[in-house]
Amino acid sequence: MDIVVITSLSGIVAILFTVYLVWNITGKEKGTSGMIKIHDAIKEGAKAFLRRQYKTISIFIIAITAVLGIVFGLLTAISFATGAVLSALASYLGMAIAIHSNIRTAQSARKGLNEALTTAYYGGAAIGMLLTGLGLLSVGLLYHASEGQPSRIVAIVFGASLTALFGRIGGGVYAKAADIGADLVGKLEISIPEDDPCNPAVIADQVGDNVGDVAGTGSDVYQSYVSALVSAMIIGLLSPKGYTGLFYPVAVLAIGLVSSILATFIIRLRANSARSAINRVMYFSAALASVSSGIAAWIIFNNFTVFYAVLAGILTVILWASITEHFTSVSRPPVRMIAKSAQTGSATNILAGFSIGLESTVFPTLTLCGAIFAAFYLSGLYGVAMVTIGFLSVTATLISMSSYGPIVDNANGILKMSGINFKSANVTEELDAVGNTNKAICKGYAVGTSVLAQIAMFLVYVNQIHITSLNIINPQVMIGLLIGSMISFVFSSLIIRAVGKAAFLMIREVRRQFDEIPRLREKKAKPDYAYCVDISTKKALKGLLAPSLISIIVPLAVGFLLGGEAYAGFILGNLASVLLLALVFTNSGTAWDNAKKLIESEFVQRGGPTHAAAVIGDTVGDSFKDAVGPSLDILINIIGGIGLLFASWFVAYVIFI
Amino acid sequence: MDIVVITSLSGIVAILFTVYLVWNITGKEKGTSGMIKIHDAIKEGAKAFLRRQYKTISIFIIAITAVLGIVFGLLTAISFATGAVLSALASYLGMAIAIHSNIRTAQSARKGLNEALTTAYYGGAAIGMLLTGLGLLSVGLLYHASEGQPSRIVAIVFGASLTALFGRIGGGVYAKAADIGADLVGKLEISIPEDDPCNPAVIADQVGDNVGDVAGTGSDVYQSYVSALVSAMIIGLLSPKGYTGLFYPVAVLAIGLVSSILATFIIRLRANSARSAINRVMYFSAALASVSSGIAAWIIFNNFTVFYAVLAGILTVILWASITEHFTSVSRPPVRMIAKSAQTGSATNILAGFSIGLESTVFPTLTLCGAIFAAFYLSGLYGVAMVTIGFLSVTATLISMSSYGPIVDNANGILKMSGINFKSANVTEELDAVGNTNKAICKGYAVGTSVLAQIAMFLVYVNQIHITSLNIINPQVMIGLLIGSMISFVFSSLIIRAVGKAAFLMIREVRRQFDEIPRLREKKAKPDYAYCVDISTKKALKGLLAPSLISIIVPLAVGFLLGGEAYAGFILGNLASVLLLALVFTNSGTAWDNAKKLIESEFVQRGGPTHAAAVIGDTVGDSFKDAVGPSLDILINIIGGIGLLFASWFVAYVIFI
Repeated sequence: MDIVVITSLSGIVAILFTVYLVWNITGKEKGTSGMIKIHDAIKEGAKAFLRRQYKTISIFIIAITAVLGIVFGLLTAISFATGAVLSALASYLGMAIAIHSNIRTAQSARKGLNEALTTAYYGGAAIGMLLTGLGLLSVGLLYHASEGQPSRIVAIVFGASLTALFGRIGGGVYAKAADIGADLVGKLEISIPEDDPCNPAVIADQVGDNVGDVAGTGSDVYQSYVSALVSAMIIGLLSPKGYTGLFYPVAVLAIGLVSSILATFIIRLRANSARSAINRVMYFSAALASVSSGIAAWIIFNNFTVFYAVLAGILTVILWASITEHFTSVSRPPVRMIAKSAQTGSATNILAGFSIGLESTVFPTLTLCGAIFAAFYLSGLYGVAMVTIGFLSVTATLISMSSYGPIVDNANGILKMSGINFKSANVTEELDAVGNTNKAICKGYAVGTSVLAQIAMFLVYVNQIHITSLNIINPQVMIGLLIGSMISFVFSSLIIRAVGKAAFLMIREVRRQFDEIPRLREKKAKPDYAYCVDISTKKALKGLLAPSLISIIVPLAVGFLLGGEAYAGFILGNLASVLLLALVFTNSGTAWDNAKKLIESEFVQRGGPTHAAAVIGDTVGDSFKDAVGPSLDILINIIGGIGLLFASWFVAYVIFI
Repeated sequence: MDIVVITSLSGIVAILFTVYLVWNITGKEKGTSGMIKIHDAIKEGAKAFLRRQYKTISIFIIAITAVLGIVFGLLTAISFATGAVLSALASYLGMAIAIHSNIRTAQSARKGLNEALTTAYYGGAAIGMLLTGLGLLSVGLLYHASEGQPSRIVAIVFGASLTALFGRIGGGVYAKAADIGADLVGKLEISIPEDDPCNPAVIADQVGDNVGDVAGTGSDVYQSYVSALVSAMIIGLLSPKGYTGLFYPVAVLAIGLVSSILATFIIRLRANSARSAINRVMYFSAALASVSSGIAAWIIFNNFTVFYAVLAGILTVILWASITEHFTSVSRPPVRMIAKSAQTGSATNILAGFSIGLESTVFPTLTLCGAIFAAFYLSGLYGVAMVTIGFLSVTATLISMSSYGPIVDNANGILKMSGINFKSANVTEELDAVGNTNKAICKGYAVGTSVLAQIAMFLVYVNQIHITSLNIINPQVMIGLLIGSMISFVFSSLIIRAVGKAAFLMIREVRRQFDEIPRLREKKAKPDYAYCVDISTKKALKGLLAPSLISIIVPLAVGFLLGGEAYAGFILGNLASVLLLALVFTNSGTAWDNAKKLIESEFVQRGGPTHAAAVIGDTVGDSFKDAVGPSLDILINIIGGIGLLFASWFVAYVIFI
């Protein structure tokens, strides 16, 4: 079977399945007019923001496309534009699906847990299948245009990751400014519960869930998916296996996509709890993908050697998921420790959560090292690339799980804000708790895919600059390494700063409204939602500029000033620092969040000093886990994409020898 | 002139100068009996802790000395023991000098600013000269015993850094538990000022300043000093310059030590402020060291090429000091921004400080890269090692400045606790503010010396395993790199955890005493200081075990399991992560501290929510800047020391090929 056939087939199947799911969801009831009003406000806010965001971005994208077309020719320009446009499209459509699903989930919750779970998961799955399908389809068609030379289409990586970066940072700053503003003033100063309609920032907060968690995650995973696929194809072609080496990774991803589609159906089956229902989907799709990849390996290579590398990748996903659960679940010691430390105030709570975040880097790093080590000894560099492919084979399921999170979160918000009865809100509360763990698992997964994609790209890169060893007597390599590590720190700093500044304005505005709007505190007046939406929008668009610029300028500067070997050091330094920092940020953030939930449910009543300390930890964690951590994942692939695109230039046009 | 002569001469001059300074200080008045009582309490507490700490450590040291003696022979065992014992001795004597100086400084403050400044700086200088003198003397004598083969005495690096690590972590946990306990309950819950004698943790806090800031910093700088010196000597001997290449770095350090001694005298001269008086000492000793090193280069090599590398090192010190000042001084935008963000609470304050810490990595990294780059193109690898030597040439002055900090801090505490009149406390308050900036500059300096020492050791290491390039097709190198980066994160996590746990107990105990001791709140009863001292002591000794063990076990595991090349990757990954993390921790910590000071002096009154937010930021920062950051500096050199010691073993006995 031909690569174009297999990618087109599986891509089209996935898109058709998305259409089926969307048709299924939009056929469901929308609920009361109060619910529809809130739903419409969220929809308007989210669409307005994305439109403004993509308008801002499009100037960059068009300019870069033009430059690449002139310098590298048409196919490169097309590849770059395809990556950029599909990344934006995927996130826009994903968000639209999420918004259509949330109100139906809210309405389903009034009928029962199982009904709501299915609706929400279908919404998530529609997004998961769409993104993965678009990824496979676009790479397949571009590969066809490249006439069998995947190295000619590497610009898709740069295009996809650059757009994803804009979306991630913009969405992250938007969401977290609103979230922090709503939480800090609402919970601590006015003592109203989450999602209370009298909170001026509450609509901005709901919009943020969509533009951050759905749109942001969508384009993020899309970009690491195409990065890894293109790199694996190039490595396959370079391997002694030749065309079959190129064909197998594509086949595994197609198999994985179909497995994820099939796994969607078992969400219908009864399970003990929402958590176990969703875990079963994950295990089922992983098992199905494993078995089918094994069969495919036997058919293609007549042995299992390469399959073991794929299996190592799939097992790594499962291990990472359990590690993330250990460090972030309310029922495990780390979160309990953080909750306990809140008894002596914010300072000890911050220290405890941060130390958990730092500690949580150990096992993922060791697991990753183990998988790389095993794969290399089984089938060399090709094996290392195939670990990445194994890891990515279950992408569709993981995005489905991840997108389920904001859908139930919003459903919960819609029910609460429209004053619907207690019982159905309880259903969405339960689903929301599951959604939080899902989101945490998928954040870890996104870190893993990006890092593995980058390892694959690194292997391609060193091949393109024709080196097999790094000259460590050459100080440029060490300088590249140091700058590569350092850029992750500055990048994180800029995003935290942007969130902090936006949150500062938001807090002041929410305080102002509570002070100046008469009777708002008694919930007898309506706040000015639009002004809060406006603050988030403006600050988000402003905040994404600096980090985006340095993620392009610094790599080019290192490459052209210090040369190709220094750039290899730069990639390595960046790889290590992003892996660790992203894990620290995402895991500590989720752990603080769940420590707060634990305190709210068990330890003490809301409003006391322990709860206040936990809310502060949660707020710090919000920007860590939803704005900084996920953006780092993308930075790494932009650096990889630039490396692949300019490899030969860095060798030829280096300024200092 | 012979190396033994030059090191012995300058070492003995430095020690004699120390004796002179101590004689000068102890000749001064001790003040009132109230002051002497507090002074005695601090002295007892500090000595008791150090005795217990070194008793715990000595078992390790004796065991390791025995093993090294059996495996590597007598000279290695002696080198290791020399490093370990001198590191402990230096920190013990340093602390004793500091404690004798603080009461005299307090008494001098009653006579005026200039008198107090001179007394405090003499105390600091006595410590600085002693440590540096012992460093030069010990390396010189061991070099003599090695019969001109400095590579035979590398175990001194391991001995010095291991003892320093124990001291740093133990002292850091001790000091910060007490500091956090005293501040959080005292300032936020009871609303009493710092150093109020009715605070149960106040004596433990003062003891902590000595065992943490003086004893800890002393052994820290001693270890990076000897690490860098030994590595530079080896690189010198390997360079085409041969013996002169070995002689020159020793000469520069001897010159630097004498320059620092001479610079001590200009503290007597009038200056506008304490800050400028101390800055002038730093600039003067840097200028003197530069000129003399230039002359020495001309005499030895008949040209200035190598001298330029030394100069690059000295300039790096000055640049790093100004960068640190920018990010941590109360009069600059970063600290003002943090203080402003406290207006919307702890969460935004934490985010702002952390983002400043992350940002503060940029310029030091670029400066370092620039110096390495320039030095390499001037005189190759030898030039890179000589940057390190240039950086270290002003060590004595920098330790003097650093040790001045806790002396004035304690003097301030003694005056306040013994109820001495307002005016002299104002003098020590002013000196204390200068001391804080000094401490911050020297923390950055300690990071720099350790990283540069590690770069020098890395160059020796790759020479010992006979490679000039790293095979990046070999995945062990990447695995080594990832684990090397990761170990810094876990190590930091363990220390933060230890501080957090100890602080948790301390806060509960201080709260208990205020609740249970009748009339303590009205300052009419005496708290139980001893119980707080006991909590700090026990938790500090417990807290140092886990991080110390992983700092030995993980490097050995990487070396023996994955081999010499992987260990080179391990060093590189660790180097980058330690440089960045240590800068984040030390700078964000100081910035929070000074933001709190700014708020206390300008923005708002104590006790309000903005002040509370600032105190929480300061508390988080305390463990960052005084426990974690400085310990990372030492971790890096332990890894280097183990590498130098076991290099040939890692190549010969690797388990996986």
